Amino acid sequence: MQTAEIVAIGSELLTPTKTDTNSLWLTELLNEIGIEVKLKTIVGDDEMRLEETLRDALDRSDIVITTGGLGPTEDDITRRVTARALELKLEFREDLLEDLRERFRSFGYEMPEKNRQQAFVIEGAEVLPNPNGSAAGMMAEKGGKILAVLPGPPRESRPMFVNHVLPRLRESAGTISVRRRSIMVSGLGESKLDELIAPIYTQYSNPVTATLFSRTEVEVQLTATAPTSEKADALNAELTEQISEKLGIAVFSTNGETMEEVVGRLLKERGETLATAESCTGGLVGERITEIPGASEYFLEGVITYSNEAKTRLLGVPADLISANGAVSAQVAEAMARGARERAETDYAVSITGIAGPEGGTGEKPVGTVFVGYAGPDETMSMRFNLPGDRHLIRWRASQAALDLLRRQILKRG
Amino acid sequence: MQTAEIVAIGSELLTPTKTDTNSLWLTELLNEIGIEVKLKTIVGDDEMRLEETLRDALDRSDIVITTGGLGPTEDDITRRVTARALELKLEFREDLLEDLRERFRSFGYEMPEKNRQQAFVIEGAEVLPNPNGSAAGMMAEKGGKILAVLPGPPRESRPMFVNHVLPRLRESAGTISVRRRSIMVSGLGESKLDELIAPIYTQYSNPVTATLFSRTEVEVQLTATAPTSEKADALNAELTEQISEKLGIAVFSTNGETMEEVVGRLLKERGETLATAESCTGGLVGERITEIPGASEYFLEGVITYSNEAKTRLLGVPADLISANGAVSAQVAEAMARGARERAETDYAVSITGIAGPEGGTGEKPVGTVFVGYAGPDETMSMRFNLPGDRHLIRWRASQAALDLLRRQILKRG
Repeated sequence: MQTAEIVAIGSELLTPTKTDTNSLWLTELLNEIGIEVKLKTIVGDDEMRLEETLRDALDRSDIVITTGGLGPTEDDITRRVTARALELKLEFREDLLEDLRERFRSFGYEMPEKNRQQAFVIEGAEVLPNPNGSAAGMMAEKGGKILAVLPGPPRESRPMFVNHVLPRLRESAGTISVRRRSIMVSGLGESKLDELIAPIYTQYSNPVTATLFSRTEVEVQLTATAPTSEKADALNAELTEQISEKLGIAVFSTNGETMEEVVGRLLKERGETLATAESCTGGLVGERITEIPGASEYFLEGVITYSNEAKTRLLGVPADLISANGAVSAQVAEAMARGARERAETDYAVSITGIAGPEGGTGEKPVGTVFVGYAGPDETMSMRFNLPGDRHLIRWRASQAALDLLRRQILKRG
Repeated sequence: MQTAEIVAIGSELLTPTKTDTNSLWLTELLNEIGIEVKLKTIVGDDEMRLEETLRDALDRSDIVITTGGLGPTEDDITRRVTARALELKLEFREDLLEDLRERFRSFGYEMPEKNRQQAFVIEGAEVLPNPNGSAAGMMAEKGGKILAVLPGPPRESRPMFVNHVLPRLRESAGTISVRRRSIMVSGLGESKLDELIAPIYTQYSNPVTATLFSRTEVEVQLTATAPTSEKADALNAELTEQISEKLGIAVFSTNGETMEEVVGRLLKERGETLATAESCTGGLVGERITEIPGASEYFLEGVITYSNEAKTRLLGVPADLISANGAVSAQVAEAMARGARERAETDYAVSITGIAGPEGGTGEKPVGTVFVGYAGPDETMSMRFNLPGDRHLIRWRASQAALDLLRRQILKRG
């Protein structure tokens, strides 16, 4: 299996608010043709460190990909330092200069003199055209190693990589394809999940199985390696089927769909409609549902009833039900869902009332106590959750619990 | 100025969906005490590459910080490889083993045998206690260099760094302090902004000024360097004041507050209340407002009127107003805001109706057309925006435009 290293260049990537993200899509595309990323480096506009990084990378790995530092300013050191690391010269390319001049003319400008340096390339390197910017890329080969030099903005580097670098790498990568597939699981604890599926996945060394825990859901990630992508996909499909059968309704997606996409698709397929009634999540469930294009086909309306008075006026929750049980209670969650469904005349409604914190918790109902309500054609019910995390996470987990309850109820109805 | 390198360890950080983020807060804290981060490396569970990375880093930089790879499994190679890179031995610490056993007992478990390896530390290193996990950290010094070895999860590594590593680094960092301050600007285009403030900031070489464009707002970032943090803060304060004076109401924050925090603070200070009425943003404005703890003091309710029928029933928008002007119109935006304010009996309401796409655009009202409405004690009005970007960005920008309109109107009232 061939190995790659990615070097992201630019001092702005070493500040507290920015970091390299090109390496994520680069890794995905490299993995798919069976090339493993072994190391990533983020280096500033620092010639000494960049040269050392490049020399080490070319020494250790088959493929080195750099992003950034190809602009026209003094800080843009990538051209000269990549050449130095390869022990090759830079050569001036009259045709590139003409392209640059033409590019500026087409926008109605004269080319600034400093852009002239963008016409220098490593001797013998293939020039990679950049339809989306002034910085051409380069691909050089030396001693069996490949060095691809790409600009920083993904809008420029990604098409360049896909159209010019990837085909070359595919030639030499040979006949290994690595494919990933994720089984998304909701409503099952980590240890319970592993107890159920370890007897299955431990029988396979290919795909490799990793279990990742994030926010509310569990992701069972399969990575299959095979001579073709079709064969790798087939290996993943077989194990996906076995794990899905074991876990049943707890699996909400095996094809990359998010929870809100799954719920949206189920509603659309059935021609059914939804309303929401949110208290502590403040609109998050509505926001997630309507992030999906075309949500207006099934999502009609929602209310954010933050005050008790709003719960009564907008949803018809009796004031004495609130005073008897508290706004955060099963009774109020169910009354909210029932009220939302009746007033909006939808097939379903979901509701959330809870304590997201950091204040407002009590001994009986600590921060993280959330009631999720459901109202549908056959029944109205609610579930109590004790969600861990800070305000942000509790709210996100509550929204996920509501969408998952809706998903399970729709599927239960058949 | 002392220099640092950060090494993030773990094969999961080399996959297409995960990457190191610890380095962002590490960089921020290091910068504040005048230590510059010169290089970041992300390396998998690969002993050879990790050892080479660590040796290079210790060679080049004064301070090396690693995160991750301290767990109890075979993959957790950080202990032995950091020791090797320092050419020091690992020593077994009976007291650490006892702490580990006690930790497991306190959760009602017997310590698994594999956790025993977490009781090995680099000889002579300071052990950094971990109240939030089983992996203790280490801080070693050799040849004038400092190596800090931290666990991966930020919940564990951050308090460890702040409480044990930072005080030690502050001692040796000496007398340079670097402080950043951001002036957040909304409702001004990039070129207009620069035209206004370039004559001011170009007079200063310290602080250094950078202008960053993100989503809807512009961040003018000042970085001041001085012998003490107080002096650096004073340099930033002087330039912040000059720029703020020039830009006036377009500056919404100079102290790190987000737009929703600013709006929340203004409402709280005035003892005033807010309701929202959202169409294309589907609850995003409500979600942002209620993300702030204590929002129930000023946010009473919101409605997500995705269907036209809901706009009429929940907000009293006349059906013939919608059919005459279209749901995406100034008239409907204003009627939504007026209806929300009257029904909720709040001081203010904001509303949003627009076309977030990708479908639904027309020649007259293309995708990105958004009307933001405002209703307050003195007036009801609306603004039209043509927002660039995909569905996600258009929705986010619309929510920001609504919050910014509210902010400006509140401030206008005095």
